[in-house]
Order: sequence, then C-alpha cells, then structure tokens
Amino acid sequence: MKDSTKIAALGIAPETKVRVKIVVAYDGTAYSGWQVQKIGRGVQEVIESALHKIFGIFIRIHGSSRTDTGVHALGMVAHFDIPKERLRMPVQKLALAINANLPPDIRVMEARTSTADFHARFDAHGKQYRYYVWNHPAHQPLLRQQTWHVPKPIDYSAMREAVKLFVGTHDYVSFAGTRSYEMESTTRTVTRCDLQRKGPLLTFYIEGDGFLYKMCRGIVGTVVQIGQGKFGADAVVEMLAHKDRRAAGMTAPAHGLVLWKVYYNRRGKR
Amino acid sequence: MKDSTKIAALGIAPETKVRVKIVVAYDGTAYSGWQVQKIGRGVQEVIESALHKIFGIFIRIHGSSRTDTGVHALGMVAHFDIPKERLRMPVQKLALAINANLPPDIRVMEARTSTADFHARFDAHGKQYRYYVWNHPAHQPLLRQQTWHVPKPIDYSAMREAVKLFVGTHDYVSFAGTRSYEMESTTRTVTRCDLQRKGPLLTFYIEGDGFLYKMCRGIVGTVVQIGQGKFGADAVVEMLAHKDRRAAGMTAPAHGLVLWKVYYNRRGKR
Repeated sequence: MKDSTKIAALGIAPETKVRVKIVVAYDGTAYSGWQVQKIGRGVQEVIESALHKIFGIFIRIHGSSRTDTGVHALGMVAHFDIPKERLRMPVQKLALAINANLPPDIRVMEARTSTADFHARFDAHGKQYRYYVWNHPAHQPLLRQQTWHVPKPIDYSAMREAVKLFVGTHDYVSFAGTRSYEMESTTRTVTRCDLQRKGPLLTFYIEGDGFLYKMCRGIVGTVVQIGQGKFGADAVVEMLAHKDRRAAGMTAPAHGLVLWKVYYNRRGKR
Repeated sequence: MKDSTKIAALGIAPETKVRVKIVVAYDGTAYSGWQVQKIGRGVQEVIESALHKIFGIFIRIHGSSRTDTGVHALGMVAHFDIPKERLRMPVQKLALAINANLPPDIRVMEARTSTADFHARFDAHGKQYRYYVWNHPAHQPLLRQQTWHVPKPIDYSAMREAVKLFVGTHDYVSFAGTRSYEMESTTRTVTRCDLQRKGPLLTFYIEGDGFLYKMCRGIVGTVVQIGQGKFGADAVVEMLAHKDRRAAGMTAPAHGLVLWKVYYNRRGKR
C-alpha cells in the first residue's frame, strides 16, 4: 500500500501539492509587463508555458507585483503549486529546468519550496525599485535599454533635496497613474527615496510597503523636472498635498525602472 | 579677396583641413568588430556613412584599435579630417550631428579638434580593457549580452593569484590568437591585471601598452579555467615561458569584453 493511500485510509488529507517560490529576473524590453495582457506577451505566461512543457499541465503563477510594459525586474517573486506526483526532481533543480525552456531575456534566479500558505503578493511587506538615468549628451549604448536618457545638465543637489521629501506615510495619488482607485486607499509608506550619482549615471533607490500604479515613475519624472528647474525642490510638499495628478511632474519612461527586490517577513520566505 | 586666397598668394600653404578626435562607445552585439570587414558590418563604416550624410563626401576614419566581432567599446578613439569649408558647425556640436545619423547601438561620446599630426593608433601609448563574467547558475538577463556566463562555482582566490602573474613585460604569444606575427614582436607590457568581485559579477581590469590579437580573451579564458581547477594558478608562469598557444587555456567569448579607455601622452590629447 502506497503512503498516500495509507494516509487517505486514515482519513487524513494527503499533501498533494508542493508550493514553490521563485525569484525571477527579466529584461522587460520585449514584454508588455509581467501579467498576461490582451495585447502583447506577458512574462508570466512565458514562464507558465515553460512549466507546461516540463510538467505537461497548466500551472498558474502568482506574482508579487505587476510591472508595466518595458519595466525590468531582477527580484520579482512568484509562487505556484506543482502536484507532488509530477515533481520528479529536487526543487533546487527546478530553476535549471525552467530556464532551459525560457528565452534568454527571462531567468529564474532561484527556486525553493515554500510553506503551503505562502503567497507572493499578499505576504510581501515591502519592495525596492531602482531607476536609472543617463545624464550626458550622448546615451551610453550598452545601457540604452535600461536607462532614461536625459541629455542636458541637471541640478543634482536640488534633486537630492527633493527625493528626501517623498519619504514618509503620504497619499501619493498625485504621483500615480490616472487609474481609478475608488474604495482603495492611496496612502503608502515610502521608507527610502535616495539618489546616487556615478559619472553620468544616476540611480534612484525607492523602497516602500507598496506602490500605486506608475508611482515610482511619477516620482522620478518629477524629480528630474526639478533637476531641470521646472519646479523647486520643496514643490514636492505641495504636490503631495494637492492629491491631484496634474499637480506633479511627468511620468518617467518605463525602461529605466527595475523591480529590484521584494521583502517578506516570515522566516525562510526571503 | 578671401583669406585663403591671400595666404596662397603669400606662398603659405593654407590650413585646409580640421583634424577631429572622437571617443566612440558601441554595443558590439550586432557588428563584426570595429573595422570594415568582408562579411558583416563594421562599426567604422557605420560612422563613415554618418559622416557622408552630414558632409556629402567620403571621410576615412582611423581607429586606435581593431576590436573583434561582438566585442564592445566605451572608449574607442578615432580621428579623421574634415575639409575646413565643409565644417559648418563648431566641432563641439559634431558629436550631436553624427549621433543623429547613427543607430542607437553606436554613439560618439565626445568630439574635439586635435592637432594636425595626432594619430589615434600611432599615438596611443596604452589601453584598458575590462572583461565581465557572470558566475551564477542563471545568467542575468539585463547583462546577458555583455557578460560571459560561467554557471558553476569557481575558485576566486586562485584566480586572483593568477591574474597578478600577467603583469610585467612578457612575450604573450601563448595567450594570443593563432595569427602569424612573423617579423613583429609579440612582447608587450601589461601594467595592470586585476580582478574584482561584486556578488556573481566578476570584473577583469587589463591594462597595457598594447595587446596581441585575442590576447585579453586568452588571459581571461585561462584564468577562468584556473578558477575551475583545470590548471594551478602558478601555471601562468610556465604558459608564458612556453610561447605556444597550445600551452595556455581557452579563449573567452567576445561578448564579455569592453575596450574601456585608450591613453595618449601628449597634453590635450586625452
């Protein structure tokens, strides 16, 4: 008598599925974001089709975040369940098997078993995004698909002043995409909003408990416009208070943004 | 009477040409190297065709170095002459004008007037190359076209020991591509050969007065094989002494290599 049959005979529900947590990196250039879209290809469906090839069944993946068309990720987290009887390899080997069935612009960097109740989206308690700006008359060819090219000189110290003002618990609706939020709160806590420069390369570090649609890009676009003298650094305070998208600056282009890391609280869950 | 006519009347040769020095960056993925090739497109001819569009005549460019198919550059230097009467803009604006006629994977980062006798190749007294290795089971999608993917763990400290042994004045023929050198000396001076690690990313810094064909890639390929335990670190000494390509290790792939900078001696010439 097989173990699972024994357990069933005892009236105990057998553990029939293994929940797997993966960390995914992708070059978003060729994709219409993470999620399955009506038009274009989502990263999620490309991984689902790799899983289909390996396990012979459709397996739904649940990502921690949606990313927009053209946005990149180095630390996207997702989970999915595999029926135990189909998992014929150690979970550690799973990343290799999935990667062998993925195009080179998507890679599973890590795969491990998680507890059965782990949820990539609901358990996430924070995220870090990075945004790259190339501030030089000529764009750098090797970074052209992951930096926003801002050719004219910008006022770095005004920008450094401005970024600090985003840290805190605020209603960030002025910096979010014009999507209807209705019942949902638009208040979020930004724990880090920082800017560093190395030659012509500027890196924004934006960390928080959650982000509204296009919020990171609204922050970066506004800060760059502050650097261009369109607004003063302290205008950020008023923009936040206005709670109106029209009060703030532009939305920075998608291809400079990278979902860097997703944070989880519980032990063993990254 | 025009100035040039006056000068001619005085028997003084008029300065009819302006020599321009440019610094070029390119993503080598789509090119068969710097130089015009029988097969494929060279970066040089793409810039020459941009100059043709701007000035209406063929202008030959002279590069500091040849780079192989797939090799990148951030600091390639080249020079060319423009007939004075055709240069209808300040030289500082020239980079912008050329870039407007180039594909996005090639960019002129800087253009300036040089002295009439400056020569990008003959005046170069040193070059720095960098080589990138991604040492992790999964390749990083955003760096996939500019890092060599070495999936299995490697012995970093053995590699650090090995790189030092390349510094000095040696006959590097054991590490060069199997091309006939005949009369030419294969002795070069390597002033820096260094290795740094940041997570899975390894960066080689190789600097010297000149490099043989595929020499950087021969050094990196051999050092990685030392990291894989195929040779001991001190084997480098014997390999150099052998003066035979078969004595050393493999040639690392082209796409991890970047021509970083070219050094010139004389003032105002970088």
